[in-house]
Amino acid sequence: MPNHVYKVVELVGSSDESVTKAIDSAIGKAAATLRHLGWFEVVQVRGQVADGKVAQYQVTMKAGFRLEDGVSPGKD
Amino acid sequence: MPNHVYKVVELVGSSDESVTKAIDSAIGKAAATLRHLGWFEVVQVRGQVADGKVAQYQVTMKAGFRLEDGVSPGKD
Amino acid sequence: MPNHVYKVVELVGSSDESVTKAIDSAIGKAAATLRHLGWFEVVQVRGQVADGKVAQYQVTMKAGFRLEDGVSPGKD
Amino acid sequence: MPNHVYKVVELVGSSDESVTKAIDSAIGKAAATLRHLGWFEVVQVRGQVADGKVAQYQVTMKAGFRLEDGVSPGKD
Amino acid sequence: MPNHVYKVVELVGSSDESVTKAIDSAIGKAAATLRHLGWFEVVQVRGQVADGKVAQYQVTMKAGFRLEDGVSPGKD
Amino acid sequence: MPNHVYKVVELVGSSDESVTKAIDSAIGKAAATLRHLGWFEVVQVRGQVADGKVAQYQVTMKAGFRLEDGVSPGKD
Amino acid sequence: MPNHVYKVVELVGSSDESVTKAIDSAIGKAAATLRHLGWFEVVQVRGQVADGKVAQYQVTMKAGFRLEDGVSPGKD
Amino acid sequence: MPNHVYKVVELVGSSDESVTKAIDSAIGKAAATLRHLGWFEVVQVRGQVADGKVAQYQVTMKAGFRLEDGVSPGKD
Amino acid sequence: MPNHVYKVVELVGSSDESVTKAIDSAIGKAAATLRHLGWFEVVQVRGQVADGKVAQYQVTMKAGFRLEDGVSPGKD
Amino acid sequence: MPNHVYKVVELVGSSDESVTKAIDSAIGKAAATLRHLGWFEVVQVRGQVADGKVAQYQVTMKAGFRLEDGVSPGKD
Amino acid sequence: MPNHVYKVVELVGSSDESVTKAIDSAIGKAAATLRHLGWFEVVQVRGQVADGKVAQYQVTMKAGFRLEDGVSPGKD
Amino acid sequence: MPNHVYKVVELVGSSDESVTKAIDSAIGKAAATLRHLGWFEVVQVRGQVADGKVAQYQVTMKAGFRLEDGVSPGKD
Repeated sequence: MPNHVYKVVELVGSSDESVTKAIDSAIGKAAATLRHLGWFEVVQVRGQVADGKVAQYQVTMKAGFRLEDGVSPGKD
Repeated sequence: MPNHVYKVVELVGSSDESVTKAIDSAIGKAAATLRHLGWFEVVQVRGQVADGKVAQYQVTMKAGFRLEDGVSPGKD
Repeated sequence: MPNHVYKVVELVGSSDESVTKAIDSAIGKAAATLRHLGWFEVVQVRGQVADGKVAQYQVTMKAGFRLEDGVSPGKD
Repeated sequence: MPNHVYKVVELVGSSDESVTKAIDSAIGKAAATLRHLGWFEVVQVRGQVADGKVAQYQVTMKAGFRLEDGVSPGKD
Repeated sequence: MPNHVYKVVELVGSSDESVTKAIDSAIGKAAATLRHLGWFEVVQVRGQVADGKVAQYQVTMKAGFRLEDGVSPGKD
Repeated sequence: MPNHVYKVVELVGSSDESVTKAIDSAIGKAAATLRHLGWFEVVQVRGQVADGKVAQYQVTMKAGFRLEDGVSPGKD
Repeated sequence: MPNHVYKVVELVGSSDESVTKAIDSAIGKAAATLRHLGWFEVVQVRGQVADGKVAQYQVTMKAGFRLEDGVSPGKD
Repeated sequence: MPNHVYKVVELVGSSDESVTKAIDSAIGKAAATLRHLGWFEVVQVRGQVADGKVAQYQVTMKAGFRLEDGVSPGKD
Repeated sequence: MPNHVYKVVELVGSSDESVTKAIDSAIGKAAATLRHLGWFEVVQVRGQVADGKVAQYQVTMKAGFRLEDGVSPGKD
Repeated sequence: MPNHVYKVVELVGSSDESVTKAIDSAIGKAAATLRHLGWFEVVQVRGQVADGKVAQYQVTMKAGFRLEDGVSPGKD
Repeated sequence: MPNHVYKVVELVGSSDESVTKAIDSAIGKAAATLRHLGWFEVVQVRGQVADGKVAQYQVTMKAGFRLEDGVSPGKD
Repeated sequence: MPNHVYKVVELVGSSDESVTKAIDSAIGKAAATLRHLGWFEVVQVRGQVADGKVAQYQVTMKAGFRLEDGVSPGKD
């Protein structure tokens, strides 16, 4: 089992449809630029209300990815 | 940015279909009588089991709304 | 299983006799005016000291009750 | 030491000047309609940023007040 | 109201489709062998990412069931 | 001081009389089948309300017991 | 309202009879030597089990007292 | 990625040498009887003091293992 | 309501004058390089003591900003 | 970097003017008798209300100081 | 089982070698002056970094000891 | 005492030997690219099990470093 170092970033995804789509939007955007994205953990679920209905679901997540050799954890 | 005062109430919505519908039912009921309902935050997700399946999803939420001038925070 | 909406209020009961009586005093007062009061959960137990003894037990609780149809969650 | 029952409500005060003024605005509004308001506890301090500066401080507080005899905890 | 004793176990359900299906899979498996399974509470929602998308939702839950008379809490 | 391994189980005791009796009922039932039961820790105190009074106190506890040599932690 | 400074100490009281007596024993001992002891807050309730019954209730508390002028907070 | 169900048990390992050996003793004992033991998470580190030195390190852990098909989560 | 993705970073601001100035210094520095900085939340307030007085207030904050399209969450 | 041992005490400062002055009053009093006082951390901010305004801010803090050689941690 | 009263103090031990030695240094110093020191619990592990390496491990602990009859909890 | 701004990043270090080596690996990798790395705080200790033994220790940490003038907190 190789001993890697990982970095964890905190993201908020949002969706007007569902909690799941809010998660998916943030993971999709993160995965587009972060290589080796491996896992996420939901930190908080909240949302906005408008016209008597949920207008937007907002999910705060931590997402972890493996740092490549020779790459700064500061560069994500 | 106007400096308002908001009140936060705690609600539990329930649904036999999904977590999302449990959220929606509580927000819908709250919005029917609370003007200026603005946001919610999920506090807990739990549920009842019957006949070996989830019989009801129950979501505890905090919901915040702006207090109008001249209206008591005690009157919600 | 009917899908109701519930409201949760936070109360503090006090007693110079015991923690149990502090709980009972708050539930009794709440039940006198809130219909459909269903459950409670203890949040904190604290107290005052005087003359070298516990002078008062104070129990903070959350108490939940079902909202009737057509009644505002803001009106409790 | 009389054994009263208290109710705790959650409020958010806001100010574009300071955290203290955000607290004061919520307490002032609550005290205008709630008799016997006695104490508060800060739950969260957050804020909005605009034009590279803090545009608004927002303080979430719990505030407790004594319930009079014959008054519903649901009526605050 | 009969005074029973209950046991609470911690389970992790997983699904490649949704959080709800992850809950359902764990409850379904638990209910197959635990009689009197009554309620659950979500402790954590996390997941695995692969190929830039959520590959698996993982939900940690506590699930409670009533102990029958004469049955050990150690035997679940 | 011998170096043992212990297992911790989560139980809910209930009583219509007091918090203490709710604790005692769960410990009594657990001790009947778990050898070497050593300690407990209260996790949560809650209850049900009926007819304007507390109808049942429910205490969630963690209880720890020493595993004998050659016995599976899975068998409690 | 005079602006005092208070110190908070952490104590564990124990009793083989009840949680309440465990609280009382610690407050009684603390009050015997600490002047101006004013309030306490329960941090944890746990206990020991022997012969299949609760052998001792142990209550961890924080207790606060006012510091007199010219007295070190280090001297309690 | 197969969608399994996992169970999580809570264990306390102890050692008079180090925190690491306390972890290892509990994992070793658990692995002897639980198939598919996969991960652990440290919940608390505490210890006993005797003769002015640490006499025993005690580590509380959660440990997770995959449930085989056809096996009860109650049977661990 | 557009469905954006946000990133949250953790910062510590410090000031020898007040908590407010510690917040302002961190927000000011962050806003100088992060576009679309929108909100912050205080995580912890601590400080250093020297010569019997508070020498520095240190405020740990989370600060959130919207990610532009085509920009990596790793690049902040 | 010398390897010292530190002690942490819990204090409550109060002020009728501001949160900052409540912090300062407790640190000032503690520093008068505790040598090597080094840092503090805010645990809770609360207050009393009178005549519809905040009458007193109360700040609970942990404060740490280095123990000199040959001095008991019990003597603070 | 005798019903004693215990006091809990908070200490920080430090070491440039390991977490274990940081624990041992604080327990050793505390035990030199506190009679009846019985147990400890780790609250936080942190450290300082210098020259790209961990320069010091710092462990915050709670440590409990039995109060003798006739001795003030304020005198530790 | 100069009033700097610091950034805090979250890292996971892993080691098949010990918790300490898992900490050291993450700090070593972070220090290689982050100037002014100053402190860390352990958030979680967990690990993987294989063949009945701990196969890997994984330590989640927060690590703080001072931001230089003219450098974006977004660039770490």
